[in-house]
Amino acid sequence: MSLRRLRDRVVVPTADAAEAAQRRLDALTKPPGSLGRLEELARTLCRISGQCPPPTHHAVIFTLAGDHGVVEERVSAYPQVVTSQMVENFLRGGAAVNVLARQMSARVVVADLGVATPLAHAAGLKSLRIGEGTANFTRAPAMSHEQAVRAVDAGIALVEDARRDGLDLIGTGEMGIGNTTSASAITAAITGIAAREVTGRGTGVDDAAWERKTHAVERALALHRPDPHDGLDVLAKVGGFEIAGLAGVILAGAAHRIPVILDGFIAGAAALAAVRIAPAASHALIAAHRSAEPGHRYVLETLGLAPYLELDMRLGEGTGAALGIGLARAAGAILRDMATFKSAGVSGGDGPAE
Amino acid sequence: MSLRRLRDRVVVPTADAAEAAQRRLDALTKPPGSLGRLEELARTLCRISGQCPPPTHHAVIFTLAGDHGVVEERVSAYPQVVTSQMVENFLRGGAAVNVLARQMSARVVVADLGVATPLAHAAGLKSLRIGEGTANFTRAPAMSHEQAVRAVDAGIALVEDARRDGLDLIGTGEMGIGNTTSASAITAAITGIAAREVTGRGTGVDDAAWERKTHAVERALALHRPDPHDGLDVLAKVGGFEIAGLAGVILAGAAHRIPVILDGFIAGAAALAAVRIAPAASHALIAAHRSAEPGHRYVLETLGLAPYLELDMRLGEGTGAALGIGLARAAGAILRDMATFKSAGVSGGDGPAE
Repeated sequence: MSLRRLRDRVVVPTADAAEAAQRRLDALTKPPGSLGRLEELARTLCRISGQCPPPTHHAVIFTLAGDHGVVEERVSAYPQVVTSQMVENFLRGGAAVNVLARQMSARVVVADLGVATPLAHAAGLKSLRIGEGTANFTRAPAMSHEQAVRAVDAGIALVEDARRDGLDLIGTGEMGIGNTTSASAITAAITGIAAREVTGRGTGVDDAAWERKTHAVERALALHRPDPHDGLDVLAKVGGFEIAGLAGVILAGAAHRIPVILDGFIAGAAALAAVRIAPAASHALIAAHRSAEPGHRYVLETLGLAPYLELDMRLGEGTGAALGIGLARAAGAILRDMATFKSAGVSGGDGPAE
Repeated sequence: MSLRRLRDRVVVPTADAAEAAQRRLDALTKPPGSLGRLEELARTLCRISGQCPPPTHHAVIFTLAGDHGVVEERVSAYPQVVTSQMVENFLRGGAAVNVLARQMSARVVVADLGVATPLAHAAGLKSLRIGEGTANFTRAPAMSHEQAVRAVDAGIALVEDARRDGLDLIGTGEMGIGNTTSASAITAAITGIAAREVTGRGTGVDDAAWERKTHAVERALALHRPDPHDGLDVLAKVGGFEIAGLAGVILAGAAHRIPVILDGFIAGAAALAAVRIAPAASHALIAAHRSAEPGHRYVLETLGLAPYLELDMRLGEGTGAALGIGLARAAGAILRDMATFKSAGVSGGDGPAE
């Protein structure tokens, strides 16, 4: 389904399933509310999916890769070749996201949206290349409007493809040397917050590189003046192929009522763009964690999301999403498998005795 | 092994395995430190176990049950019979701890340390009864010194028994109507913090019951004056059979270098007592989460532990420990299964390029 057709299917879900979840949570053998935010997560999964208990069997982390022309400005601690080397690492199963996904019984789908360096080994890779890396957005738009639409469509296609094998939880992941610079620019463009507030150290750059990075974001925004209400315009001017692809993954999740468990800062920037394309998509989002990247808190505040984990992670790839999938599975299982006061013959199901 | 013999085996672990963990973490295909507290957890598991990677295959949650005479003071929202009803629920696999333990592939060992109401169905239960519930500690010591020692020994025996089937991660859990009152009294006794600061709403009591509960703690401490430096004295005077048993579980974990993943407030109170019995036991502890019970933060501060999760949970049973076991498994897998820069042929393993 193309973005144009899919956009109309992104609607605000009704409250019915979340209400059913609350009734069930209150009937289970535990003091009301005593599982805290795990209960909130259970309600959210029901609301998004429209089902109670929510299906949580087929989790897929979509790890999209792309390169960024802005690395010419020396904004990253690693050379650009690392993007393709890490894609090969994903395909061999040796990266952090693979390890954590295996722990959570989630599948990792690895897609090339536009890696600059040719891959030596690409077995298992979804090739959806939009270009050989974006342009250096301090000088020209990162990509054309048409390329942004194609990248979003590619993300949508990945979700629709995965649905054929079963898909009821989506995790977002990414790889792209330089992509925290793009995420910073998207965040600054959409939220209006200053570049130096939202820009962090990414892979771990020093003060001088951080200054270059912040300055690159400032120059790009001054040059292109992206329209903060037009997600596609922001993605085209300062985005990345993999980030636009993730916006498509998010929109497809929302359209098909599949909960989207966001990873960190870059996934969050993709979500900001996605909700500027289809505002109701915000109702499909779950924030797995709060990243150590400073811009992430502004992203989460703008999206109205409270993260479930705060572990100072800042790796990306979908690693935070993997941990979030573990929690979502646990929340779903609570609704599905716990005994009720009635079924277990436990006293006090009508509420506390005093 | 009895407490007397085991106590001498609780020693501060050397730093060797944690240093090996740090070297390996820095060689893995990720920016240094980018997995944040998951890396800290990995180092901790290595330090405690003395092995790198740490073994995380056989996780057991020890859910110990006991009743509390202080319920006569009307301090709980549920009747005392719920303790035995919930034990039956645990044995049938329908409680929250069972559901979450299954998600994390952990085993639940359910033990009766002194439930007051006879159990109708007890298949699978470890019967280690010290008495038919404790005495009402607002009038008499909860138990004798000799009973406290026996309860601690029972917890030690549970761990030694489980080790025969493989045991490399311990989770603590408990059930006992009235046991947040006992945990509050233990916490106030050991930390010296006022009863009204450490006493919370437990299963969800109203203002009047909270006043009675706080007052019960104050009266007990004034009456018995437990020695804050003597864990057994505190347990005997204001503890519970299941809490003393958990202190034994914790001490046995420390003696055998098995990481102990603490649940919430009640497990934390047991840990406070345990480290007053053998101070080096603190080095075996990992705080899974911060409970919504107000006293828990004082417990964690006193133990010097930073919790990994903050989900406003307050159920007990070992539910928080189950989630912590999931994180520990993930941290262990990172060390065990991730590729290194060298093995994956990824550039930048000598540290950031700039």
